[in-house]
Amino acid sequence: MKQAIIITIGDELLIGQVVDTNSAWMAQQLNRWGFEVHAIVSVHDNAEQIVSALDDAVQCADLVLLTGGLGPTKDDITKHTLCRYFGAELVYRQDIREHLEQLYANRPDVLNRLTDTQCLFPANATLLRNAVGSAQAMLWEHQSSSFSHHTSTVISMPGVPYEMMWIMEHSVEPLFQASSDITHRTIQVTGIPESALAILIEDWENALPNGIHLAYLPKDGIIRLRLSGYGVPVEMVERERHKLLELLNAHDPNLVVATEDKPIEVLVGEALKHRHLTVATAESCTGGKIAQLLNRHPGSSAFYYGSVVAYDNSVKQHVLGVSLQDLDSFGAVSEPVVRQMADGVRRLLHTDYAIATSGIAGPDGGTPDKPVGTVWIAISTPEETYAQCFQLGKLREQITDRATLKALIWLLKILNK
Amino acid sequence: MKQAIIITIGDELLIGQVVDTNSAWMAQQLNRWGFEVHAIVSVHDNAEQIVSALDDAVQCADLVLLTGGLGPTKDDITKHTLCRYFGAELVYRQDIREHLEQLYANRPDVLNRLTDTQCLFPANATLLRNAVGSAQAMLWEHQSSSFSHHTSTVISMPGVPYEMMWIMEHSVEPLFQASSDITHRTIQVTGIPESALAILIEDWENALPNGIHLAYLPKDGIIRLRLSGYGVPVEMVERERHKLLELLNAHDPNLVVATEDKPIEVLVGEALKHRHLTVATAESCTGGKIAQLLNRHPGSSAFYYGSVVAYDNSVKQHVLGVSLQDLDSFGAVSEPVVRQMADGVRRLLHTDYAIATSGIAGPDGGTPDKPVGTVWIAISTPEETYAQCFQLGKLREQITDRATLKALIWLLKILNK
Repeated sequence: MKQAIIITIGDELLIGQVVDTNSAWMAQQLNRWGFEVHAIVSVHDNAEQIVSALDDAVQCADLVLLTGGLGPTKDDITKHTLCRYFGAELVYRQDIREHLEQLYANRPDVLNRLTDTQCLFPANATLLRNAVGSAQAMLWEHQSSSFSHHTSTVISMPGVPYEMMWIMEHSVEPLFQASSDITHRTIQVTGIPESALAILIEDWENALPNGIHLAYLPKDGIIRLRLSGYGVPVEMVERERHKLLELLNAHDPNLVVATEDKPIEVLVGEALKHRHLTVATAESCTGGKIAQLLNRHPGSSAFYYGSVVAYDNSVKQHVLGVSLQDLDSFGAVSEPVVRQMADGVRRLLHTDYAIATSGIAGPDGGTPDKPVGTVWIAISTPEETYAQCFQLGKLREQITDRATLKALIWLLKILNK
Repeated sequence: MKQAIIITIGDELLIGQVVDTNSAWMAQQLNRWGFEVHAIVSVHDNAEQIVSALDDAVQCADLVLLTGGLGPTKDDITKHTLCRYFGAELVYRQDIREHLEQLYANRPDVLNRLTDTQCLFPANATLLRNAVGSAQAMLWEHQSSSFSHHTSTVISMPGVPYEMMWIMEHSVEPLFQASSDITHRTIQVTGIPESALAILIEDWENALPNGIHLAYLPKDGIIRLRLSGYGVPVEMVERERHKLLELLNAHDPNLVVATEDKPIEVLVGEALKHRHLTVATAESCTGGKIAQLLNRHPGSSAFYYGSVVAYDNSVKQHVLGVSLQDLDSFGAVSEPVVRQMADGVRRLLHTDYAIATSGIAGPDGGTPDKPVGTVWIAISTPEETYAQCFQLGKLREQITDRATLKALIWLLKILNK
């Protein structure tokens, strides 16, 4: 299997100011192209550290992807460091200058002497085009000096996510034949603890053929079971996936919520779109998180109409029509209120389905009766309105993330009935 | 300066199924405790790779933090690998068993023979308590065998973010005296290209004293300028920060949007709360993103009342009171519509301020007149309603993220006037 190593460069990663989202995305692409990602390494904007990480990487990897440190400012040192590493001179490239002039046609203030340094490009590197930013990517073929004559391709890209993505899709992918012999298949399971699930499928797991590996990825109430085949035919992985599905369904047909690795909101969207149905949300504690998931993917306007984030009780009452008496008697986090929120938004926005949430996300506002983590969720459907109370943990972000996921899984199950 | 290395373990990281958010958070804590994070390394659930990363780390780091691979299932091998590395026997600990019985008092189905393996703990390790999960953290003091007698502390924690966070805060932090000699100060700047900014402050930057370093972190229209002092007095960093602020303000008093490293939505919230003012949002293309930022932090109910996500035009018309004639004549992405959205939601939810967005997030829906990336933003205030049109890029996520940030920065500037 061809090996890749990702090196992300930037002080901001190592002081925790920025989360490295690039690596996961790059790893997915590399997998698709038939590479196994051996390791991901983050280092400072420091020449010695960059060289040391690169030295290690070229020894074992066929492909080394570097991101970051290609900006025009003083703290960006990757280009100069790589030039020294590969013994390259910088030459001024008129084609890059023309690209910059086009890129900033409407923003002449961006074209100055610092930006102009982006036109300096290593003479012995191949230019990989970046149409959406100023820093062009560089490619070198590196021949190890040891007697093994191992060759690595080294590619350096900017760290700005959408620039890196553009370069990967348009300039890097064409270089690599998509001939992956890595296969991943994911089944999503809910309503069972990880350990109980592991015992349930233990015999099957122990009998897995060589080259097929199972991983458990639990998060916020969903366990993703990922079957990975390395160097084995796709059919073999499919056969094991099929056995696993049968095993799970025989135990409890409600366990499996999805048979592919798509986010739940995408599965909900597909189920709605397929049946020409629409949805709205009325959110208190989740504060728009469900809305945001439902409309984040292209094409969502076909099934998603809108939402009311009813954070303050006045909004629940005046916009969604929740009874003031019920708000007073039962409190905002209660069954009658969450039901009226769901029904209210479904009526207001004229949709087929509606989701409502009302809970105590903390850190304040908990009582002995309704501790932090108490969340009521309701689903309003053309036939019936369902409501249920959950205890979803102790931390604000965790509670709202789990409530969001619970609500979407519940709607998906109702739609798939 | 004490050095730390973070090793995150898990196949899911290297196939890109999960973004490593733990490392950034851990790096922030380590900085606070006076450690510089030398590198972050992600490796597979593979004994050889874990040992190799650990071998490298203990050579140069005073503290090595590992996360992941401590679950009860077959793919979790970190505990056994570390036991071999440190020559440890596993012993059954009754105190862990009692903790599990308490933890799962309401969920007896979780306590089975697999969960019970969590009670096996390395005899020569120190237990660091995890009150919110089953896997307890392990600490070893490692003495290098070379003649340098370098000692490293090695700590292995679960990878579930909130469990890792609990352990770091309650069980690890007390072990390290907070005696940091690292100082970070951040100024947030907007409305100027990175390269023009660099030229503007070049003389000041070139004259920075030894031990103080400047970094540029551009993202979605904001450039964070981070001044980092390593082993220098805080006052020295503060002095440079002051000089920088003066320089920027002399050039254009609108450049600086914030003088600390807080998210914009927190600064907006503080400005509102301080003056007992409230805000609502009416969102089309941002789909609830602004709402979610405004209410994600504790205490937001003091200034945030609610939102209408008006994705479908019928919601703009019937809930927000946008004129059907204007929707027809000018389209949803237009100045009259976004103004009426902002005014409408301010009236509907009885708030002092309101933000509205309407744009073409793509990938479809663009026209020559209004290409993908066109976004109208309006701010309704007690005095006046402002509206402006922006071109925010080509990619859906980028466009909605930028629109969200633009709107919040704009409101912050109005509030700070």
